[in-house]
Amino acid sequence: MPATQDHRIVEALASLGLVLPAAPKPVASYIPSVRSGNLLFVSGQLPFKDGNLIATGRVGAEVTLETAQACVRQCVLNGLAVVRGACDGSLDGVVRIVRLGVFVACTEGFGDQPKVANGASDLLQQLFGDAGRHARAAVGTNALPLNACVEVEMLVELASA
Amino acid sequence: MPATQDHRIVEALASLGLVLPAAPKPVASYIPSVRSGNLLFVSGQLPFKDGNLIATGRVGAEVTLETAQACVRQCVLNGLAVVRGACDGSLDGVVRIVRLGVFVACTEGFGDQPKVANGASDLLQQLFGDAGRHARAAVGTNALPLNACVEVEMLVELASA
Amino acid sequence: MPATQDHRIVEALASLGLVLPAAPKPVASYIPSVRSGNLLFVSGQLPFKDGNLIATGRVGAEVTLETAQACVRQCVLNGLAVVRGACDGSLDGVVRIVRLGVFVACTEGFGDQPKVANGASDLLQQLFGDAGRHARAAVGTNALPLNACVEVEMLVELASA
Repeated sequence: MPATQDHRIVEALASLGLVLPAAPKPVASYIPSVRSGNLLFVSGQLPFKDGNLIATGRVGAEVTLETAQACVRQCVLNGLAVVRGACDGSLDGVVRIVRLGVFVACTEGFGDQPKVANGASDLLQQLFGDAGRHARAAVGTNALPLNACVEVEMLVELASA
Repeated sequence: MPATQDHRIVEALASLGLVLPAAPKPVASYIPSVRSGNLLFVSGQLPFKDGNLIATGRVGAEVTLETAQACVRQCVLNGLAVVRGACDGSLDGVVRIVRLGVFVACTEGFGDQPKVANGASDLLQQLFGDAGRHARAAVGTNALPLNACVEVEMLVELASA
Repeated sequence: MPATQDHRIVEALASLGLVLPAAPKPVASYIPSVRSGNLLFVSGQLPFKDGNLIATGRVGAEVTLETAQACVRQCVLNGLAVVRGACDGSLDGVVRIVRLGVFVACTEGFGDQPKVANGASDLLQQLFGDAGRHARAAVGTNALPLNACVEVEMLVELASA
């Protein structure tokens, strides 16, 4: 029996020392994701791990490039957990990652938002192969929720229901 | 005869002391909304009321959290007016609110963008119920058009034509 | 034989003294565009021309409004080159421009992001007519990749395959 995509990705994560968190519960009036047609719009993810932000502050000041890359990877993990939760607990229905929006809290002179965002993009390609390659907009900002250093929004194409 | 969704929402707004503005006219080369398939992409809305911005400046400095919440609510009203104008003057064709993008002009240390955005999210749930619950990305920024304190972008799913 | 849309647009660009660059090659794990259904999501474009950014810095300080408008036009050219590359080297399959996201690196007091973005919007209308009129979100930011002064993200509707 061939390994399913979900199984393969969980194994690939394990080999990277990474674990998908539990799918977050809906909170109040905005929710983790909404499906319209075959597109799943995932809410902006912060680098929460075990209930805490991995890092706060601005890249270029308190936060290094390497830490910011680890943070966007965590955002991707959290986003994939949302996708899995929206798809009956499996990533098998993911056709491809369509788009990432990457916001990087940074100092005025900082111009390496693409390098930060590569942390997310590279991980998605490692996990999904060609289906993980996506369109992307990476920009800086002066402030993010809870003083997080990054926020990542995902758009995913799912198989027809 | 059952009340239509449009009628119900106008009544709900009235009970909250809110009124939908007239649908704005297309201005020059960019327009209030574009439909593609069943998705209606609504342009970024500023907190205009009766032709003036409710508040300008940055949250965390000149603008309080409460004022910013009132502003995102006004952005939602303006966005719904756009949706209504795009749908022959009725909200009956709205299947659900899919996504909000909320930009908050703020000081560097400000981290309560989610609380600001809740002003928009809560109103949409009050008006549309479960169909008003949406995916969301809320971020900070150092500056918005006309020095507005917030800008809200909406993505709406409409019934098939 | 009627001129095709692609031919007409290339001529219109020439009459404006503008030239579509070659379609950029995919770079690493994120790619210039992804199609899902009839929507083509184009990655955020910077004002590169012949391999260099036209201008860096912030509007309101080192960069004038006029320069910023030239830069968003260049972003649009780069984006159209991506669209063309994704559609077998022709713009004939473009049904309409759906949405622009315009990010403007600027000083805190700057509020003319819409005027900057008009450089992009006006050009698209000149090139595509009504099909070039789009929904838009224009916001400020404190920093963009490589210290670029603007970044433009495009969403395009294509004809059914």
